[in-house]
Amino acid sequence: MATQANSHAHPTIVSVDPFVPADQQKGLHNRWHPDIPAFASVKPGEVFKVECVDWTGAQIGNNDTSDDIRDVDLTKIHNLSGPIAVEGAEPGDCLVVDILDVQPFEKMPWGYTGIFELENGGGLFAKEFKSRAAKAIWDFHGVYASSRHIPGVRFAGVSHPGLIGTAPSAELLATWNERECGLIDMHADAIPPVAFAPNPTGSYVGQDIPDDVREKIGKEGARTIPGREHGGNCDIKNLSRGSRCYFPVFVPGANLSVGDLHFSQGDGELTFCGAIEMAGIITFSTSIIKGGVEKFALKQPIFLPSPIDPLYSSKLVFEGISVDYHGDGKQYNMDATVAYKQAALNAIAYLEKVGDTREQAYLLLSAAPVESHVGAIVDSPNACVTLAIPLGIFDHDILPKPEGLTKRDFGQCAVRSDGVL
Amino acid sequence: MATQANSHAHPTIVSVDPFVPADQQKGLHNRWHPDIPAFASVKPGEVFKVECVDWTGAQIGNNDTSDDIRDVDLTKIHNLSGPIAVEGAEPGDCLVVDILDVQPFEKMPWGYTGIFELENGGGLFAKEFKSRAAKAIWDFHGVYASSRHIPGVRFAGVSHPGLIGTAPSAELLATWNERECGLIDMHADAIPPVAFAPNPTGSYVGQDIPDDVREKIGKEGARTIPGREHGGNCDIKNLSRGSRCYFPVFVPGANLSVGDLHFSQGDGELTFCGAIEMAGIITFSTSIIKGGVEKFALKQPIFLPSPIDPLYSSKLVFEGISVDYHGDGKQYNMDATVAYKQAALNAIAYLEKVGDTREQAYLLLSAAPVESHVGAIVDSPNACVTLAIPLGIFDHDILPKPEGLTKRDFGQCAVRSDGVL
Amino acid sequence: MATQANSHAHPTIVSVDPFVPADQQKGLHNRWHPDIPAFASVKPGEVFKVECVDWTGAQIGNNDTSDDIRDVDLTKIHNLSGPIAVEGAEPGDCLVVDILDVQPFEKMPWGYTGIFELENGGGLFAKEFKSRAAKAIWDFHGVYASSRHIPGVRFAGVSHPGLIGTAPSAELLATWNERECGLIDMHADAIPPVAFAPNPTGSYVGQDIPDDVREKIGKEGARTIPGREHGGNCDIKNLSRGSRCYFPVFVPGANLSVGDLHFSQGDGELTFCGAIEMAGIITFSTSIIKGGVEKFALKQPIFLPSPIDPLYSSKLVFEGISVDYHGDGKQYNMDATVAYKQAALNAIAYLEKVGDTREQAYLLLSAAPVESHVGAIVDSPNACVTLAIPLGIFDHDILPKPEGLTKRDFGQCAVRSDGVL
Amino acid sequence: MATQANSHAHPTIVSVDPFVPADQQKGLHNRWHPDIPAFASVKPGEVFKVECVDWTGAQIGNNDTSDDIRDVDLTKIHNLSGPIAVEGAEPGDCLVVDILDVQPFEKMPWGYTGIFELENGGGLFAKEFKSRAAKAIWDFHGVYASSRHIPGVRFAGVSHPGLIGTAPSAELLATWNERECGLIDMHADAIPPVAFAPNPTGSYVGQDIPDDVREKIGKEGARTIPGREHGGNCDIKNLSRGSRCYFPVFVPGANLSVGDLHFSQGDGELTFCGAIEMAGIITFSTSIIKGGVEKFALKQPIFLPSPIDPLYSSKLVFEGISVDYHGDGKQYNMDATVAYKQAALNAIAYLEKVGDTREQAYLLLSAAPVESHVGAIVDSPNACVTLAIPLGIFDHDILPKPEGLTKRDFGQCAVRSDGVL
Repeated sequence: MATQANSHAHPTIVSVDPFVPADQQKGLHNRWHPDIPAFASVKPGEVFKVECVDWTGAQIGNNDTSDDIRDVDLTKIHNLSGPIAVEGAEPGDCLVVDILDVQPFEKMPWGYTGIFELENGGGLFAKEFKSRAAKAIWDFHGVYASSRHIPGVRFAGVSHPGLIGTAPSAELLATWNERECGLIDMHADAIPPVAFAPNPTGSYVGQDIPDDVREKIGKEGARTIPGREHGGNCDIKNLSRGSRCYFPVFVPGANLSVGDLHFSQGDGELTFCGAIEMAGIITFSTSIIKGGVEKFALKQPIFLPSPIDPLYSSKLVFEGISVDYHGDGKQYNMDATVAYKQAALNAIAYLEKVGDTREQAYLLLSAAPVESHVGAIVDSPNACVTLAIPLGIFDHDILPKPEGLTKRDFGQCAVRSDGVL
Repeated sequence: MATQANSHAHPTIVSVDPFVPADQQKGLHNRWHPDIPAFASVKPGEVFKVECVDWTGAQIGNNDTSDDIRDVDLTKIHNLSGPIAVEGAEPGDCLVVDILDVQPFEKMPWGYTGIFELENGGGLFAKEFKSRAAKAIWDFHGVYASSRHIPGVRFAGVSHPGLIGTAPSAELLATWNERECGLIDMHADAIPPVAFAPNPTGSYVGQDIPDDVREKIGKEGARTIPGREHGGNCDIKNLSRGSRCYFPVFVPGANLSVGDLHFSQGDGELTFCGAIEMAGIITFSTSIIKGGVEKFALKQPIFLPSPIDPLYSSKLVFEGISVDYHGDGKQYNMDATVAYKQAALNAIAYLEKVGDTREQAYLLLSAAPVESHVGAIVDSPNACVTLAIPLGIFDHDILPKPEGLTKRDFGQCAVRSDGVL
Repeated sequence: MATQANSHAHPTIVSVDPFVPADQQKGLHNRWHPDIPAFASVKPGEVFKVECVDWTGAQIGNNDTSDDIRDVDLTKIHNLSGPIAVEGAEPGDCLVVDILDVQPFEKMPWGYTGIFELENGGGLFAKEFKSRAAKAIWDFHGVYASSRHIPGVRFAGVSHPGLIGTAPSAELLATWNERECGLIDMHADAIPPVAFAPNPTGSYVGQDIPDDVREKIGKEGARTIPGREHGGNCDIKNLSRGSRCYFPVFVPGANLSVGDLHFSQGDGELTFCGAIEMAGIITFSTSIIKGGVEKFALKQPIFLPSPIDPLYSSKLVFEGISVDYHGDGKQYNMDATVAYKQAALNAIAYLEKVGDTREQAYLLLSAAPVESHVGAIVDSPNACVTLAIPLGIFDHDILPKPEGLTKRDFGQCAVRSDGVL
Repeated sequence: MATQANSHAHPTIVSVDPFVPADQQKGLHNRWHPDIPAFASVKPGEVFKVECVDWTGAQIGNNDTSDDIRDVDLTKIHNLSGPIAVEGAEPGDCLVVDILDVQPFEKMPWGYTGIFELENGGGLFAKEFKSRAAKAIWDFHGVYASSRHIPGVRFAGVSHPGLIGTAPSAELLATWNERECGLIDMHADAIPPVAFAPNPTGSYVGQDIPDDVREKIGKEGARTIPGREHGGNCDIKNLSRGSRCYFPVFVPGANLSVGDLHFSQGDGELTFCGAIEMAGIITFSTSIIKGGVEKFALKQPIFLPSPIDPLYSSKLVFEGISVDYHGDGKQYNMDATVAYKQAALNAIAYLEKVGDTREQAYLLLSAAPVESHVGAIVDSPNACVTLAIPLGIFDHDILPKPEGLTKRDFGQCAVRSDGVL
């Protein structure tokens, strides 16, 4: 007879409350540093769960204004769960991580996508749009998300951790800080900034550690915003539940950290707070391949995508080239970033014809399972990048028609309480 | 009874011989200019065929050295079939083009992928690799390609025109020339060059036109290398047979031209001559949407991909970030091009572990149905780009294994007769 | 700030304990009858959860013998959660049911697949194999299942309810009983039986209802084994989480019941207890289309499959025709059931060459996301049916090779404690 | 320079004219018999082409009546190209056949789907519908087909040979004839007949062979209608261009024959002449696996499907159970054929609501890339079978809507010149 016998729930090794500020909770940290001790330890082969707060650490609410987005404190992001030591992992090994599942908390079946202010966080079009804060709340209905702030769409989530990585060695950390601070020096007055130097303000390690170590981490710890050789904030939508990832190991135990869970995200995550950001629970198992860095020439993570990523075979695809046609017409030299931006601008202009506001379109392209391919990167001087919108996410027909497009009224997303756009 | 009655082959409106130099044939041209007259004319709704030479116009042979790649005359590329006027199309309209099929010539069931010399054509890694000419010949067996120069792989073609576009207006042409010459001026001594100015040398229009028009076209005609607002050399692998593309129209009749057919190509086409280049036959039908540019906010083409693109669900994915880790470690600012390059370098290093030479790996990533996604483009300072290799194209297992990778001997691709690599 | 404000978990309207026998729990029933009152009621548009015991109601344990399978009491299956009334639904309407998610209980991350005894339950090859009880326990690791009893495979679940349907009207119930009892009369001594007549023994309704009603339900209630016009035990693997199903309504409120959750199943579910049977939680929302039966000619449910069903593009496909080649060589007349059986026998024979025992192969084809297509059904006298095994579920290569297949040792599945096979 | 050097078209080893009656052409035959000599011979590894007439051998025309369908002479079908001997193949070997491409003749870019008369050919619903001849002509536009007789749909072809197989040995042929004639004896007066006995009338071998051999072949040769252990008329749509098939070999040389090419077909091919029948050219290569029958337990062919089969991810799925609900309400015992029929009837009834006539719907389900899965085959007494219609083939929306379905006017398919339906 079926009994509790032999029936064991997978253990949770980091527990958090999504409604409590991150800096009041154990097992979280928001800088990369080799001196952050492992918060928990697992054996290879073990299945375990890790709970994560949302990337802002409970700064954003389920409501209809974007004031919280406007006022977000970015020194406190991203709040990562961990580090988790894997027994036996040593520098030079490859840590194999199976991302077995990613789920929201049962008590928090919602997430958000935000557009940041030009001066606080930015985003791909922060300057072009002189961005003011905006927001969409997404409700999770099982495998689907939909939003009262962007009516007419519903899609299945490509749920994944936006941020996952192993801890850097001291040497690697030094390399990061040197090269990024060099870039900052070259663009001292950029708004938004080109990179983020170590900053003790807001730095947090949710463990009992000596004060001098804590201070050192604050002073030296790499910020979490960019992806780097260890993984980190790569925001790759296809590193989703069901995928298997191979990380290089830089410190004993590998010290894996994870956070910034996304219910869904489009390629590019263009508004920066562009995924459907959520708190939630990620299920892992791990194994170790000795000497894997050398065996696989592993300069950065490699991965096997999931067989259950949503499949929408019909798409409308927008092209972009590395010319800033919309403004000064400037010619860039093989710049895929500019080409991506043009493709995205073309898509936004199209969605506006269908009835979305610019803000809604910008949020939607960030959050939905949009695909962006590098078309060609060798046809000087124009890189060509495409951006594909799945047609199956709309409850209305957006295909080009001889009679043109039907412009519907979808209202507006959440904006600032002072109405400034 | 079945008879010839009501049985009509689709007409061929441009006929070429793939073994005759392009500049000896009618219906070809290799510059973009509004004064190139339509070579043929079609009615909306008509199904028709267009024959195309390979992009070099018969400069490359089916043999085992790369001397022809080394010596290719790039002033003569790309050889386009057309222009084809569509009755009724006017500036501001949208020209809908159904790419109904793309096939090689029956008498030429092969194509090639090349690595150009650093000083003659280049490619994404021309500088890093100090590229010397190399080549792979691909044999077409129905829907599949395989190569004696890269043993162990076979894949179905995502066959497409690398280059397809409508003719520019005089104003648009002037804009192109101005902005691109501006870029050239800023990088006067670049090797390979950053862009290509109009150049009468090698210019060709395979029609009877007045000498002064011919001269004007040579002097002003935009080079065909980059994709632009009209489409052009976008090298988008998914603009494949079965797709429907929406082009902006800039001149009466639209004047569609097409060439540079690819049996297959990976996202990025990284060696520049990176697709499986072929001569062949493309089947089209067209329609016109009046005022479509305004209706669809059509700054560049948009398209619906094909339902028959090859599906390989299992992939090994490589990540890249915008840091030149392999050389000077320089930090770039949100540069997706650099991130793409890193992902590609990581993939090449991996394939070398499996036994491919660097040249074979470079050619394979260019030619096979590799996918490259823009992961994230907002996480300053590192853009993240992924490159996915389908596992189903290999007859051997390339998955990461605890015991490491098995290094096989695949010989080498075609190299120069003097052996210089 | 993120608070509990506006954060509401979806309500659970039927709660069960998967380790308590079904007939001791509220909100369950195991017969179809219009007089079973609604246990709960929902409004259209509401998202809600329903907990389900496994189909046997806690008769099977997580252990290494199949004695519990041998001894299962089939008068007590299937244990369904509900009925759930949807406000406003009336006979003739269409009840739209969104299957938003299907998940195992956190405390029970496992399921099972069984082969029944010839005399107790049977299965597709009960007679051919003179089946004795066998079993495989599957462990759930996030989206994946694997089994210590069938080493070497792992696959993502196409999780779905094996059984879901609306309540029949009295007239429809009478039709069912009449036609099925007619069949039973024609095959009075069949082993296993051809159908199951109403049977008060084991009948259960977990609600407070008058004794006469309970007795009537036991005497008249249709057994749950076959699928019928209302849906029921259709065991369609693609009616999975993410799908939308349209049911005909026969009684006021529609009275939806659900159970027999499957973590995964192959087309055909050939061992009968052939899916990965599990207890779990299903998330729904519903809506009503007035007069939908007439609007859509709705004789049986229709549905839209899920975008997140696992995608394994590489498959090995077995053909079967309606000839009993393996035994007496009998020729059947266009019988797709026989053709399916032949395809399955061919697949089992192949898997035995790879090292699975017959029992393991039989269980695997039942549980894995195997696809079976009706090839042709008009080529008298042989129907042709195919069965496709996804290659991506194996950690070893099962492709046909010139040198033949490598036979591995995978041990054996769980068998009876007396060792009888 | 590119020259004819090293450029060799793949050889055509059987050449036919699609407009000449089959029985006036060389290299065709329409019975299975070991004494039909090889018409051509190939070496393993060679790529070669085989031309095929349509299955009726030029009996059907591109016109707007179905009189030719009504009058078709079924003693003369199917006209197969071959046999083709593969050097070195021996009984017990496995013949590996790569179906590299399947294309229509350039001069015949059309095909047809027919409904046969009840008394001449029948079809799945011949009796239910008291079928009179009907027809749809399909025009091929590259990878797509569309029909003036069924407006509003267009789809990519899953092009494949309906019929492909190796020659039977004398023993196998005797087995076929014995078991099928036994079935015929049991259903002597069936209309349409349950099977087809050997019949010298219409028998054809397009080679110079002695009269006595020809006579023997006519008298003993198995009819081509059903699929059998050697493959044959399996009408499996996924045995398409790009697939690899493994056949058992029964005679020296294997003697492969092929015909009945289909531009497209739905699972089941329900009208019998249900695919888009075409003449065309098939490209093959072969290899031999010695002793493959034993190595792979090869009772019937197995195959690897193609990576380029059309992908339409959105589908509307109809369920069917083994009850003849539409007529007498009879209960069948686990009969997947009946369940398939019910699913198809449900789909036809739905398409009639959208505006297709019953004949158009019947033809469309036969010809389009419809998928039919065996849902469950163990839930006594009802097998459950599903039939999935891809939504992407329609230029109009057929999804269930609260307001019901919009009934359009699509006219009618081609019917008899006397107007009888």
